[in-house]
Amino acid sequence: MSSFSVGSRDMEAIALGGAFMGTGGGGDPYIGKLMAQAAITEHGPVTVIDVDDIADDALCVPVCMMGAPTVMLEKLPNGQEAHQALQKLEAYLGRRADVLVCIEAGGLNSTIPFAVAAATGLPLVDGDGMGRAFPELQMVSFTMFDIPATPMVIADEKGNSSVINAISNRWTERLARCQTVEMGGAALVALYPMSGAQLKRGLLRRTVSLLKEIGETIACERKANRNPADTLTSRLNGRKLFTGRVVDIDRRTVGGFARGKATFKGMDASIGKTFTVDFQNEFLVASDENGALLATTPDLICALDADGGLPVTTEQLRYGLAVTMLGIPCAGFWATDAGIELVGPGYFGYEHAYVPLRQLT
Amino acid sequence: MSSFSVGSRDMEAIALGGAFMGTGGGGDPYIGKLMAQAAITEHGPVTVIDVDDIADDALCVPVCMMGAPTVMLEKLPNGQEAHQALQKLEAYLGRRADVLVCIEAGGLNSTIPFAVAAATGLPLVDGDGMGRAFPELQMVSFTMFDIPATPMVIADEKGNSSVINAISNRWTERLARCQTVEMGGAALVALYPMSGAQLKRGLLRRTVSLLKEIGETIACERKANRNPADTLTSRLNGRKLFTGRVVDIDRRTVGGFARGKATFKGMDASIGKTFTVDFQNEFLVASDENGALLATTPDLICALDADGGLPVTTEQLRYGLAVTMLGIPCAGFWATDAGIELVGPGYFGYEHAYVPLRQLT
Repeated sequence: MSSFSVGSRDMEAIALGGAFMGTGGGGDPYIGKLMAQAAITEHGPVTVIDVDDIADDALCVPVCMMGAPTVMLEKLPNGQEAHQALQKLEAYLGRRADVLVCIEAGGLNSTIPFAVAAATGLPLVDGDGMGRAFPELQMVSFTMFDIPATPMVIADEKGNSSVINAISNRWTERLARCQTVEMGGAALVALYPMSGAQLKRGLLRRTVSLLKEIGETIACERKANRNPADTLTSRLNGRKLFTGRVVDIDRRTVGGFARGKATFKGMDASIGKTFTVDFQNEFLVASDENGALLATTPDLICALDADGGLPVTTEQLRYGLAVTMLGIPCAGFWATDAGIELVGPGYFGYEHAYVPLRQLT
Repeated sequence: MSSFSVGSRDMEAIALGGAFMGTGGGGDPYIGKLMAQAAITEHGPVTVIDVDDIADDALCVPVCMMGAPTVMLEKLPNGQEAHQALQKLEAYLGRRADVLVCIEAGGLNSTIPFAVAAATGLPLVDGDGMGRAFPELQMVSFTMFDIPATPMVIADEKGNSSVINAISNRWTERLARCQTVEMGGAALVALYPMSGAQLKRGLLRRTVSLLKEIGETIACERKANRNPADTLTSRLNGRKLFTGRVVDIDRRTVGGFARGKATFKGMDASIGKTFTVDFQNEFLVASDENGALLATTPDLICALDADGGLPVTTEQLRYGLAVTMLGIPCAGFWATDAGIELVGPGYFGYEHAYVPLRQLT
């Protein structure tokens, strides 16, 4: 048994870790943190449990928000919607959920499940389906273990909802994405209902603990007036890509995604150089002025404010902001052929092959 | 009791009447006719019943195809899909349907319900929700009687489906339309599940009989080498708008609809004049060269081949085709304020007010 309890103060660290591991996307966890803290204050702390302590026949359900983070900031969830999505899925399945799951260990979706867990009294498993954030719903370890995303419920704040059943997780993404756009660019979803046995196969373990640890590290380093970049790269086997100031930012909401490209002028050791980082909700590819890769999806590209050391999301990027970009190796399963097919550069329309971070200098 | 039986030969007349009352849209009933005839050959004839013979607590369900007629012609349904949409809705409701309903008395959707009725052995009610065809799913008498379109099932030929629950029939349209587009531009749906009591309030009565009668009239007139235009305008209190030859046709598939405009050079009594007819799946507005209205939605604009006398759908319009355009008064409920709000010129983006056909010369 290695369960632990998450109270209102712990949510600060988890949200901070989630913002960092969200690789610039997944939405600012701040909103989800407030929702979780309000629910914890009302209903009590959340129990985070080890996947091995879950019964094989338990019903385990990820709940999350879907859509463009830029929209989520303007169309705040009311705190009940994620819970309602779960309830609608339970009604459809004719069975109550036993365990909640984080679909991604990053961004808003690393905090929203805590709000639902507190409100329902259900435990949350220590793990997720990505070990980071990704923009599309089929981009999870569960897809690689043949676990269907459906039946899936998608719901909005107005009272509209759908139960989707699809022939593949890519099809689920298509049918859910178009409805997310219609619903105003953001929606709440409950999906990948699975058994405890399936969860044991598919889950990327202990990433909720990791978020908490990363958040505590960032807070601790900031308290000591140190930028957390060095400690985090060392702890996560990553490295600094560059420190630079935003000189240009191109940002559009297209097809339900926040897409764009940020250009940076190098500072410190990188002075005189130019860098670009592309994103689709999340940071996807970092390159230098000659087009040479610095890091590429599925490896993590994480941004810290060069001054304060806080994580920076794509929607916070603005002209003049100084940022330290870090590369962090992705979870091992993403570096397989099946993983690269699902979330590698080719899927996002890039011509370059995946080169692991450790082979790039 | 005024039920009647529809066999394979009767489907010829119903499809012909459906093509005429489809006002150029709703899809060519030919495909649906073949599906219905195949099902009738296999399972026996369909019983069409009067709405007053239905129990108040019966479950009555319209089944139909949704999407752009241009797409339906290229992506033929396999005959099982509409039945599958019904079965999925029955599974969701936990109850079998007692009666099937035509959502519209025109186009493909006036024949598809016969295929499902034959396959299931269920009776079909004599009536529909429009008395013509319209492009969007909230455009039915049922909406005017506050009958919700949901729970609604949308399904494609690949095996994807959704159950939609929405706060209004307009919202149902939005969530279903975007999925129709994702599904390839056409999908099968079962919607507006309602009680017999609701059906008695909302149904436009005896329009299935009317389609059969119109089809028989067209066939009879053609046999006698007469164009059916005069007999039909007399029977339906309509009038000829013009006879002309297509000189230009602008056609696009946009947002899941077939939209466009056809321009005609007048013939016979109209020689020397130019006419235009706008359509969104269905013919919406007919005007002369000075922009004067000849007929406008919700009144029916129906096209007959000037030579053979057969109904012409928007996708059959081609350069050089000679067509007689008829105006037919819509069902009375469409001419109310609530009806005009739902399907009048303003809804489709026109600036002109609705002027009833009888006031236009």
